[in-house]
Amino acid sequence: MSQPLRLGIAGLGTVGVGVVRIIRKQAALIEARTGRPITITAVSARSRDKDRGVSLSGYAWEDDPVALAKRDDVDVFVELMGGDEGPAKDATEAALASGKDVVTANKALLAIHGQALAEQAEAAGCLIRYEAAVAGGIPVIKALTESLAGNEITRVMGVMNGTCNYILTRMEETGNGYNSLFEEAEALGYLEADPNLDVGGIDAAHKLAILSSIAFGTQVDFDGIEIEGIQRVSIDDILAAANMGYKIKLLGVAQMTGRGLEQRMQPCLVPDSSPLGQLAGGTNMIVLEGDAIGQIVLRGPGAGEGPTASAVMSDICDIARGWHGPVFGQKATTLASATAALSQRPAAFYLRMGLLDKPGALAKVATVLGEAGISIDRMRQTEHRSDQAPVLIVTHKCSRTALDEALDAMAHTGVLASDPVALRIEDL
Amino acid sequence: MSQPLRLGIAGLGTVGVGVVRIIRKQAALIEARTGRPITITAVSARSRDKDRGVSLSGYAWEDDPVALAKRDDVDVFVELMGGDEGPAKDATEAALASGKDVVTANKALLAIHGQALAEQAEAAGCLIRYEAAVAGGIPVIKALTESLAGNEITRVMGVMNGTCNYILTRMEETGNGYNSLFEEAEALGYLEADPNLDVGGIDAAHKLAILSSIAFGTQVDFDGIEIEGIQRVSIDDILAAANMGYKIKLLGVAQMTGRGLEQRMQPCLVPDSSPLGQLAGGTNMIVLEGDAIGQIVLRGPGAGEGPTASAVMSDICDIARGWHGPVFGQKATTLASATAALSQRPAAFYLRMGLLDKPGALAKVATVLGEAGISIDRMRQTEHRSDQAPVLIVTHKCSRTALDEALDAMAHTGVLASDPVALRIEDL
Repeated sequence: MSQPLRLGIAGLGTVGVGVVRIIRKQAALIEARTGRPITITAVSARSRDKDRGVSLSGYAWEDDPVALAKRDDVDVFVELMGGDEGPAKDATEAALASGKDVVTANKALLAIHGQALAEQAEAAGCLIRYEAAVAGGIPVIKALTESLAGNEITRVMGVMNGTCNYILTRMEETGNGYNSLFEEAEALGYLEADPNLDVGGIDAAHKLAILSSIAFGTQVDFDGIEIEGIQRVSIDDILAAANMGYKIKLLGVAQMTGRGLEQRMQPCLVPDSSPLGQLAGGTNMIVLEGDAIGQIVLRGPGAGEGPTASAVMSDICDIARGWHGPVFGQKATTLASATAALSQRPAAFYLRMGLLDKPGALAKVATVLGEAGISIDRMRQTEHRSDQAPVLIVTHKCSRTALDEALDAMAHTGVLASDPVALRIEDL
Repeated sequence: MSQPLRLGIAGLGTVGVGVVRIIRKQAALIEARTGRPITITAVSARSRDKDRGVSLSGYAWEDDPVALAKRDDVDVFVELMGGDEGPAKDATEAALASGKDVVTANKALLAIHGQALAEQAEAAGCLIRYEAAVAGGIPVIKALTESLAGNEITRVMGVMNGTCNYILTRMEETGNGYNSLFEEAEALGYLEADPNLDVGGIDAAHKLAILSSIAFGTQVDFDGIEIEGIQRVSIDDILAAANMGYKIKLLGVAQMTGRGLEQRMQPCLVPDSSPLGQLAGGTNMIVLEGDAIGQIVLRGPGAGEGPTASAVMSDICDIARGWHGPVFGQKATTLASATAALSQRPAAFYLRMGLLDKPGALAKVATVLGEAGISIDRMRQTEHRSDQAPVLIVTHKCSRTALDEALDAMAHTGVLASDPVALRIEDL
């Protein structure tokens, strides 16, 4: 096992440069741990001349990542370009077609094309590893695939997009609205080139789709996720939730039910004393639940050069040590086709509404809820604002269908000053 | 890869029975994940007739675990007996001598004999895996060995004994003293047969010794750990710490320093808003820090049938998939001999003392601290109790040596009503 493991790295942005840095800095340590040297043969990026603050001397240069992926002197193709189409996909396919293992941080590619790529890889006897694709430095792929291999997974959930969590945390801290904090995050460089990937929940949903596949033995089903971003989370809701002992998080949840696979990525309330409730700023957190283990919680940096490169190195070191296994925890050809199921699992809900200043308005709302079979855990009416009476309600557990019926009936009572806000409260 | 992996399980207590249950219940799921069936060939325990609530039919019985370990029809010897000498050690050595891989949950065995066993295993081309030995269901061995393989580890710390954390949490909740909560934990069956293993910090120190070896590439050095149990933690300190925004935890910390390896297992203060501070009850938490990843936090059940068996299954499934690697993250023969270094890293300290009711008493204490170069971050004198004035001090960072000198000088001022309590405040 003293032959070097030779890498070809495509993409020299933050993460690619981080990987190069680690391989140069920790060569001896890594060789002691994996039993063989890990070397870089060739690299590829859009611009050859850019100063990246790290020496690329000694590495061959390829303008075309596909050419890089096919090189005979590359054992592992490290795909750090990103994007679910174009060069990342082409080069990954080329690497697999050339019999090479692939390490990638590309959540979009796997969420959209994971099944086809996994089938291609496994037919060719190659690996695809992607610890860095989900929750940055948090070792969730390994924990789910390997550490929980003896468990029937019952639920996977987490805060998987640091930018959204940063915005929501800062909204509560500052009392400012979404737009103001969106601008702050943008100024800090926290947003993707297409900000909707972050604030629209798409990036986090890509990650959830990957976790669901491993957890439940189903083909990656990104389209089956109910996705709602944080753009409509109002500062009023954040403050009202805080006042009642909750935080609002963009929370991903996946569960297998009798009717199919529920996957949700949406703003939810969680108790502020829970690990998820206490997660402030850009940190990520994943909660894994299994029939034997109960619950484990993994917390760490979800992005950034060092943490993401650390996760990429974890995959590379595993390959150097001879790791092998299927892409999504079991053979791709044995993964079941996922049946997407809208969430019908009863939950408590948080409701906020403005009532017109009319006698009996609150009674009408309460009556509508009662008629839908929804009982009220807590209700608060706060001081009037102009002509509205703000009302907060936390329901006992009810189905989303019953709630939607009640909201619909409420709209016909003539006492609402505006559409009510309804957010799920996730059980922890 | 369709040949079954055949286990011989020695020890049918809580964990052993848990492993049998999982293998019977999840056979199909595990085979889908690992690519081969996992079967039990033979079992061994002290009493054959005990009703364990799980069927052992179909498994051969061995009275002698050494005989079990040598059976030709066993591929992996699963050691769940416990104890650092006697049958566990003998059978583990016999298994390795017969060329079999070993999975164990035995922290004491590895903390005391880990180096010799690792050398034996690696010389024979065998594995020893032990995810369940540290922090139960938390996948910390895997995270440290595999997920952080590209990192220079800078610090490992954590709450690794659920019983101690339970007692400390309940002391704060109830306001009762240590003895009362020790009895409560005993009544609940939370204590080892020798309670000093728990409350004396020994069990947690066994775990820390194992983590240190992997983290820093050193031979397991249990004797190099500064160990202090929780027996002397008083309810006064818990309440005073809470009052100043801290929790007291039995915290294990390992760091490599220029002078050698610091390993401490002792009661420390941590900010109550930190993940460690928020850890209540019997749950465990491990914090891993590396140069690339920064910090990750792993939280989960540290004991119990399901979680511990889940960790054992993780190792078994890895072996079924063909995992191989050295026992402590790099070849045992390359592990450095650890030089134990007492902690000289500056830290803030919490001091509690009773002063005699004399004019100038507080000034004398402050003067002594100042003369030792220790500056005071916060000081509180609370209402007198009988003839004493209770004083709480939080220092700025200072060395333990300077603090010990100050405490010594303080003893000669004639103003102390009793020996001061000094507890380290760990940086998080």
